[in-house]
Amino acid sequence: MPIPKEKQSQERRQRMLQCAQELFVEKGYMETPVREIIMRSGYGTGTFYNYFTDKEEILKALLEEFAGEIISTISSYYSTETDLYRRFIETKRLTMEVFTRNEALSEIYSRASGVSDTIDQCLRQFEDKLLGFYSRNIEYGIARGFFRDVPVAPVAHSILAVEKYLLYKWIILKAITKEEMIAMVISFHETLAQGLLSAQHS
Amino acid sequence: MPIPKEKQSQERRQRMLQCAQELFVEKGYMETPVREIIMRSGYGTGTFYNYFTDKEEILKALLEEFAGEIISTISSYYSTETDLYRRFIETKRLTMEVFTRNEALSEIYSRASGVSDTIDQCLRQFEDKLLGFYSRNIEYGIARGFFRDVPVAPVAHSILAVEKYLLYKWIILKAITKEEMIAMVISFHETLAQGLLSAQHS
Repeated sequence: MPIPKEKQSQERRQRMLQCAQELFVEKGYMETPVREIIMRSGYGTGTFYNYFTDKEEILKALLEEFAGEIISTISSYYSTETDLYRRFIETKRLTMEVFTRNEALSEIYSRASGVSDTIDQCLRQFEDKLLGFYSRNIEYGIARGFFRDVPVAPVAHSILAVEKYLLYKWIILKAITKEEMIAMVISFHETLAQGLLSAQHS
Repeated sequence: MPIPKEKQSQERRQRMLQCAQELFVEKGYMETPVREIIMRSGYGTGTFYNYFTDKEEILKALLEEFAGEIISTISSYYSTETDLYRRFIETKRLTMEVFTRNEALSEIYSRASGVSDTIDQCLRQFEDKLLGFYSRNIEYGIARGFFRDVPVAPVAHSILAVEKYLLYKWIILKAITKEEMIAMVISFHETLAQGLLSAQHS
């Protein structure tokens, strides 16, 4: 039985993404030419350009999948936990666990900030997706009267900022262990939660 | 009257730091060779190496002065304000104002993270200085019974993380204005402060 076209197409795309990710970690994003991604994948140049127009599009696709994994991990946890306080804290642990499971992408994400305008726009798309998701969750807590009616954007940004900074401190600086990183992210959110909780819940 | 040796020496050092800073902004830190810093300063190669061993030492010196300016700005504000809540909030505004006054250094700081291990160690020294200062201020609030007895390191890291992330969002991504950046930093700290305040103060 022949492999269905669509499935084959999906597998090729995944293989090219996988090869690109490996090279980005080995050599750095800037130092990886598209030519090498094509060589490693074993496909022809034409095949590559059927799927992607350039290297930035690969980075965007990798980060989009990554944001998708974080969001779906949190969303499926929501279906098992109704306590809003535990949700607020435990989702941060789950997020950091997705980061640690995807060490390669986490390192690319941590290193690439500020390197060039094009890369920053790729990262921004990734971060905006997370910020939107975090914001909706805080808005949900406010709508339910669980959180105080505080401005949402600064809080959503602080969650991402703390996750990103402690990830950098672990994966790039190697100044803290993975466990210390997760413990610090959790501890910060416990303190922040006290500032968010409405009077009847604190 | 001849210029005293020490004063002349200090001026030369400052001039070299100034030229390096200009070039780092114009060309990027990585793309600036020491040779060009020497050329722009107008001094000889020997003079340069009397003051600095390499480019990293220049970056460290620039960031050390920068951290010093942030800390001294906050410290002198402390002598005019005794209310601990206002101190906690207003010092964040002052910090962001130091960042915006030093746009060149802020951009170098925002762009350089993760670029290379040597640069990261320079940045780490800068951030550790700020983290130490932030930690001592939170400990002071806890010792005075103003803040709850929460783990200090995660909170100090969150303050730096939020400042750094929103600075990046303004200066690199240009996704928010200077005023929005400061307003978000302040708003986050107002929410965080509610989580920090001890029962008798909240």
